[in-house]
Amino acid sequence: MPLNPADDAFAETLSRALPGGTLRRAEPRYLEEPRGRWQGISGWVALPRNVEEVSAIVRACNDARVGLLPYGGGTGLVGGQIAPEGPAPLVLSLERMSAVRATYPEENVLVAEAGAVLADVQAAALEANRLFPLSLASEGTARIGGLLSTNAGGVNVLRYGNAREQVLGLDAVLPDGTIWHGLKRLRKDNTGYDLRGLLLGAEGTLGVITAAALKLSPVPAATATALLAVESPAAALSLLALARDQLGEMVSAFELIGRMGFRFLAEALPEVRQPFAEAPAWCVLVELGLAQGMDPEGALETLFTAGMEAGLISDGLVAQSEAQALQFWEIRERIPEANRHIGAIASHDVSLPLSVLPAFIDTGLERLAQVGDFRVNCFGHLGDGNLHYNVFPPQGRKKQDYLDVRAGVQRCVHDLVNEMGGSVSAEHGIGRLKVDDLERYSDPAKLAAMRAIKAALDPKGIMNPGAVIRA
Amino acid sequence: MPLNPADDAFAETLSRALPGGTLRRAEPRYLEEPRGRWQGISGWVALPRNVEEVSAIVRACNDARVGLLPYGGGTGLVGGQIAPEGPAPLVLSLERMSAVRATYPEENVLVAEAGAVLADVQAAALEANRLFPLSLASEGTARIGGLLSTNAGGVNVLRYGNAREQVLGLDAVLPDGTIWHGLKRLRKDNTGYDLRGLLLGAEGTLGVITAAALKLSPVPAATATALLAVESPAAALSLLALARDQLGEMVSAFELIGRMGFRFLAEALPEVRQPFAEAPAWCVLVELGLAQGMDPEGALETLFTAGMEAGLISDGLVAQSEAQALQFWEIRERIPEANRHIGAIASHDVSLPLSVLPAFIDTGLERLAQVGDFRVNCFGHLGDGNLHYNVFPPQGRKKQDYLDVRAGVQRCVHDLVNEMGGSVSAEHGIGRLKVDDLERYSDPAKLAAMRAIKAALDPKGIMNPGAVIRA
Repeated sequence: MPLNPADDAFAETLSRALPGGTLRRAEPRYLEEPRGRWQGISGWVALPRNVEEVSAIVRACNDARVGLLPYGGGTGLVGGQIAPEGPAPLVLSLERMSAVRATYPEENVLVAEAGAVLADVQAAALEANRLFPLSLASEGTARIGGLLSTNAGGVNVLRYGNAREQVLGLDAVLPDGTIWHGLKRLRKDNTGYDLRGLLLGAEGTLGVITAAALKLSPVPAATATALLAVESPAAALSLLALARDQLGEMVSAFELIGRMGFRFLAEALPEVRQPFAEAPAWCVLVELGLAQGMDPEGALETLFTAGMEAGLISDGLVAQSEAQALQFWEIRERIPEANRHIGAIASHDVSLPLSVLPAFIDTGLERLAQVGDFRVNCFGHLGDGNLHYNVFPPQGRKKQDYLDVRAGVQRCVHDLVNEMGGSVSAEHGIGRLKVDDLERYSDPAKLAAMRAIKAALDPKGIMNPGAVIRA
Repeated sequence: MPLNPADDAFAETLSRALPGGTLRRAEPRYLEEPRGRWQGISGWVALPRNVEEVSAIVRACNDARVGLLPYGGGTGLVGGQIAPEGPAPLVLSLERMSAVRATYPEENVLVAEAGAVLADVQAAALEANRLFPLSLASEGTARIGGLLSTNAGGVNVLRYGNAREQVLGLDAVLPDGTIWHGLKRLRKDNTGYDLRGLLLGAEGTLGVITAAALKLSPVPAATATALLAVESPAAALSLLALARDQLGEMVSAFELIGRMGFRFLAEALPEVRQPFAEAPAWCVLVELGLAQGMDPEGALETLFTAGMEAGLISDGLVAQSEAQALQFWEIRERIPEANRHIGAIASHDVSLPLSVLPAFIDTGLERLAQVGDFRVNCFGHLGDGNLHYNVFPPQGRKKQDYLDVRAGVQRCVHDLVNEMGGSVSAEHGIGRLKVDDLERYSDPAKLAAMRAIKAALDPKGIMNPGAVIRA
């Protein structure tokens, strides 16, 4: 049975059951998304102040068979937060539930509401002399609920894991409106199925996360940052193994940047300072987060020497100050901006088993060359096997001229990823963008199990309809 | 509709569809469990050699509405592997699927079949100069499939996480017999719901794990082990915070031992060497796993000095050799054996938020004193907030005289755990022992969601019937 739209009549009825100002007409910002690919059609947004109000809203939607679109910071890149078609769902924004409720430094735990902005959570942790390690480009806008619902990744996954690994407990509202009080601050809890892990990464299709007990970590006593030029992705991976043999978990980040990344920065953002006189074929941005009593320069020097001796490193720059470390990070973090200026024909967020990653990069270029003349900017979280593998027109051409090959380019890249045992969505999720990919590449047994779970927990299909799983 | 028994007629029919010798009459070892609490009633055991045979067996059971009992090493402590009543299920032992299929040292990944013994997996990892960190007392017998299905814990959770955190991908057979090919070696994969995390910890009630891609870690370059006497559990926790501030993830284990633990060893296992002239009120066994270039003695000395200065440590012994480190670990690891000799009235595997743990220990003693005259041996994985809180008769009395108070003791302890935001099963799982506890203490919304998921994935209820969720 199809869903009903969240029309004025529904909104006005619901409005009367809630405190004044909880429902509003949806402003444009709820109907846009970062890449401008879709335009939302929702007419109303609900802005609850607490979990009871969330529960009342979800229950009303379920009773009236009206779709519900949980909304965090709106930074998602796969359209999970936007409904461009179908009966208009009610947008449920968690922005008024943005408190960091408590920090427990002696437990390494912080409890935050779903609407808390990531940067605020990071700051609250630091105030307690602890680290909340989840870190990504949109951290000033992205909210905890969305980050957890999409199992966000970022630059520190190598050391600390994905968003799912940062969560001890959750409060959530399930699709029938019942509240799951699961905000436990426990490291070990084997009482039944991992409902927590199931909601994390479900992109709002199985319920609404309203609060989370998050794991904190000790703040490393010292950090050390370097840009190391390597000959190839294979050399970069050998260097990573060497670094981890020497330093274990203290390797916090290990990011790959290719020559194309430097060129794009020079082309689109000439104000970004180029660190090498001549851009190396490949380079890695290494960040170490060290224990007390360790010498950051010494640790990097040991790594550098071993890497040189093993023939893995050809050149390198060690940050001499925090300012220089930030400069190195700026190079990495502004590549996506340069990409937007140049205009990608197709972007891919893929992961591969580490050992096949070099072959993937080479074979990908070969296969794409058969499709057309492209430039590929391949960069990302090498330590996690996660590449942002983005395809651009040759210099001087525009992406608009390539609209007809876009689907073919994506198919070419994703088919190769699938052949090599990889994932076509490493950290961004499925949203609405990759529903077809999920159906094409997923194991049928997994897909059937997902559909069965969705039907069991959300039989009317009200939660984020059209995302992840087709109705 | 009730299940049918796996009787001779069913077994003989199934037998003909499988290679010779796949089905056997169940030997006594499949019908016993470590604490001798239950006796299994199954008449037949299936011993498949590969996932296709597992699939055929599960499908046949599903078609005939016959229960299936997945069986690993048989070391579980909550009766998840034994059916003492009801229509006899078919035991499905994974012991013939025990290969470590491959190690990928450059990826920090190992792929093992579900029947692989934990010690063999650890050894295979070490052979590749890598660490598989899951470690617990039964590691010479416990098998990977059972360890993952129960989300096992052990002594290294503080640093490396529970079993669930060790798994990248799974192959499994779902309750209708379909095979989920999910043996991916990826650090990041956001393509749909976390079916992996759902099967991990489901204790065989949602399917049969047949193989796993497991995360490996670098082997620490050096280890350092010490027994440090502290005044109280609160002091132990402050010392842990201090250690983690200094050393971050390099604190590998942090185990609590109380005076009662030393007394029980002296009473039951006098051959175990007592490390202190007089047993301290409380002590912690600390193990550091250090990076290259770090001095183990220096790291411990820094910690010891800071702990003394903060008034947290009153005495301490630093292992001077690997043999002495093993001796320290022997003290910790033989406490359960001493407990068995003395005979517990009731054993509890509980976890609490770290900051309320000291209050739990004190209040627990007060409340138990109102129930009767007991001795409490409280020890365990302090760093995880996980205590084994076991209650014994006074010296000279036998547990047999206390059968009538057992349920009251358990209720007293579990009620307190629940009041304080803890878990009544930290690492052992629910099995059959704690089904009532799960129903009593679980959040109703979570329980309803669990039942809905179980009904969706296993509508006939054939998978490990009676465990975790009541039919």
